[in-house]
Amino acid sequence: MTEPAGNSGNPNAHVPGMPVVAVIGDGQLARMMQTEAIELGQSIRLLAGAPDSSAAQVAADVVLGDYKDLDALREAATGADVVTFDHEHVPTEHLRQLISEGVNVQPGPDALVNAQDKLVMRKRLREIGAPVPPFAAIESVEDAEAFFEAVDGAVCLKARRGGYDGKGVWFPGSRAELGSLVEELLDAGTPLMAEKKVSLVRELSAMVARRPSGQVSPWPVVESVQTNGICTEAVAPAPDLPADLAERARNLAVTVAEELGVTGVLAVELFEYRDENGQPTIAVNELAMRPHNTGHWTQAGCVTSQFEQHLRAVLDYPLGSVEQTAPVTVMANVLGGDTDPELPMARRMADVWARFPDVKIHLYGKTWRAGRKIGHVNLAGDELPRVRREANLAADYLVNARWADGYTA
Amino acid sequence: MTEPAGNSGNPNAHVPGMPVVAVIGDGQLARMMQTEAIELGQSIRLLAGAPDSSAAQVAADVVLGDYKDLDALREAATGADVVTFDHEHVPTEHLRQLISEGVNVQPGPDALVNAQDKLVMRKRLREIGAPVPPFAAIESVEDAEAFFEAVDGAVCLKARRGGYDGKGVWFPGSRAELGSLVEELLDAGTPLMAEKKVSLVRELSAMVARRPSGQVSPWPVVESVQTNGICTEAVAPAPDLPADLAERARNLAVTVAEELGVTGVLAVELFEYRDENGQPTIAVNELAMRPHNTGHWTQAGCVTSQFEQHLRAVLDYPLGSVEQTAPVTVMANVLGGDTDPELPMARRMADVWARFPDVKIHLYGKTWRAGRKIGHVNLAGDELPRVRREANLAADYLVNARWADGYTA
Repeated sequence: MTEPAGNSGNPNAHVPGMPVVAVIGDGQLARMMQTEAIELGQSIRLLAGAPDSSAAQVAADVVLGDYKDLDALREAATGADVVTFDHEHVPTEHLRQLISEGVNVQPGPDALVNAQDKLVMRKRLREIGAPVPPFAAIESVEDAEAFFEAVDGAVCLKARRGGYDGKGVWFPGSRAELGSLVEELLDAGTPLMAEKKVSLVRELSAMVARRPSGQVSPWPVVESVQTNGICTEAVAPAPDLPADLAERARNLAVTVAEELGVTGVLAVELFEYRDENGQPTIAVNELAMRPHNTGHWTQAGCVTSQFEQHLRAVLDYPLGSVEQTAPVTVMANVLGGDTDPELPMARRMADVWARFPDVKIHLYGKTWRAGRKIGHVNLAGDELPRVRREANLAADYLVNARWADGYTA
Repeated sequence: MTEPAGNSGNPNAHVPGMPVVAVIGDGQLARMMQTEAIELGQSIRLLAGAPDSSAAQVAADVVLGDYKDLDALREAATGADVVTFDHEHVPTEHLRQLISEGVNVQPGPDALVNAQDKLVMRKRLREIGAPVPPFAAIESVEDAEAFFEAVDGAVCLKARRGGYDGKGVWFPGSRAELGSLVEELLDAGTPLMAEKKVSLVRELSAMVARRPSGQVSPWPVVESVQTNGICTEAVAPAPDLPADLAERARNLAVTVAEELGVTGVLAVELFEYRDENGQPTIAVNELAMRPHNTGHWTQAGCVTSQFEQHLRAVLDYPLGSVEQTAPVTVMANVLGGDTDPELPMARRMADVWARFPDVKIHLYGKTWRAGRKIGHVNLAGDELPRVRREANLAADYLVNARWADGYTA
């Protein structure tokens, strides 16, 4: 027997009397929420775009539909105690409509819009006094040229909506290049903004969870290592981060969550950079209102994982302890390589575990595609150099089926 | 739309190229295997007795059927890389048939029979030199009376098959009582054995995982606290256990796994008792060839949980680290109380977390029934008295909706 499409409304997926969480989105974040939901005895109904998507593979109640379709959202929300998300692309007008029909949406559209539109977000952050690099709306080539002058050519151009993992971000090398890029993008209907490039030291991530009733809890600040605009590694806690800067970052994330009314997990991606006096300081880069790649380390290195915490937060349960369970934890992403090695992934896992039996492997049920996030590894331990080296070797082996350091078994 | 019954053979539940594990049984052990399978990117097909059973609730590929029905077993096994179990009650003749058809069954029937029949197990253990209390087959009242004499009345009578959680075990107070009990049970067709009651100090549990290719890895030995024959608490590592006794227990579990050819997770339930010289020693009480209640602590206190380890072992992946992540971890079971309190379970969870935010709650998707195992809590920490007290208070609150120590919020 073959299941035709989804298993929408499966009453067997939900135990009487326990909360049902509707998750909009079918990626690895929803998949890892399902893991935690199972253990907590809560249950998830998924709105998925495809029955074989990462999360739909592992869920027992799947509504198939488009997250831009109000009726599909309604179907997923019916009977659920709360609606939440594994991405921020659901149209806010649909969420307002659902709320008017009595649905509990966490985070709500007024918060979420700040994770959807980079210009809206920056204006709002400026209003609440959160540090952001100088920015401007770019509605014409003239706007772009004026901004280019204002920041001495240090321009980062961004699509206001839809960009992620380095997509929708450009660093034009000259005024002329900026001009033609802006013309082309505006012609194509892409709303734009520009931001001053900072003298980046590194990227950090400050994550918090917040409940509708107000409790808020920040995790330790992590360093997020980017390669070609994609997070490839997260180190928790961020090495050598001065205590006052860590404190400022955590407080900033709490402030953003409170002022913007975020519920569930919030990731505040930060630039650490040098100010005019050469002192390290921070500014907000992006916001994500859901579990985030830079929070995967919590699965191995924290009493409460971000996925459990997100469920607890959106259901308005008291939040879990964010104490670290190890001095250091490193997460390394497994991104599809240029080609898919012949050695099957199951054999690669075996090889990794034969060398590093304490590496935790998380795979998302995705087939190979160059650059695709197909999994991650976590490793917790005492000594950063060893942990970092082994986590990266393991992730790299899962991608390439050979040891980057020349090791042979 | 309502799903009629199961979602057997759902191709969307399995990502191409990754192993499929058929799990026979639909209880909480299978449920918690599903959690780990999701993270590892392996996938589970379940043979479940009911579509709303603990594990079927959270699985995307469920075959509905009876584990005593060869055709149902065959259907679950089709296309799976390995067949494993969340209980030991599958008829071994069916497993032999499946193996003859090319199915990979882990653990195999020759091992499994020792977890099915208490007399077969004790004979086998005696053969390999593993310590067991004196025992005898009881096929008549005369057998029983002879054994009563031999052990000075210290008789524990057991059904050879099917007993668990204190069921199928009797402690007759007199020779006459033993005689009439044996007569009644044999008349009812219950095969029996008897064992000498030991001067119990406490119960211990030594767990290991073993791969088909031979690697074997023992966890720290835990103390298993029993109330009315049901495990209510597990403390890891077992407090004040002399190092030599711990070593003996671990080695014993390794020997049993190797000699009996067990694959996957094996729990060796042990008696710690005083020998004739008053010295503490150990003997085997029962064997379980699957994840076990006394191994739940590994979810919170060990690098590799027993559920991940079981999947790794039956798939013949290298085993994970069994290092503790905290000095002490306590697991306390949540057993349905005499009545189900009015306060909904979701509210009880909230109350527990409001007081103890670091308690990990695991619920099995089961509705209340007196004495039913509906969940457990884990708590890891530094100081045994605090950890133990808080874990038990939390579990008790989930059962009774009131604090046993009189605490008020």
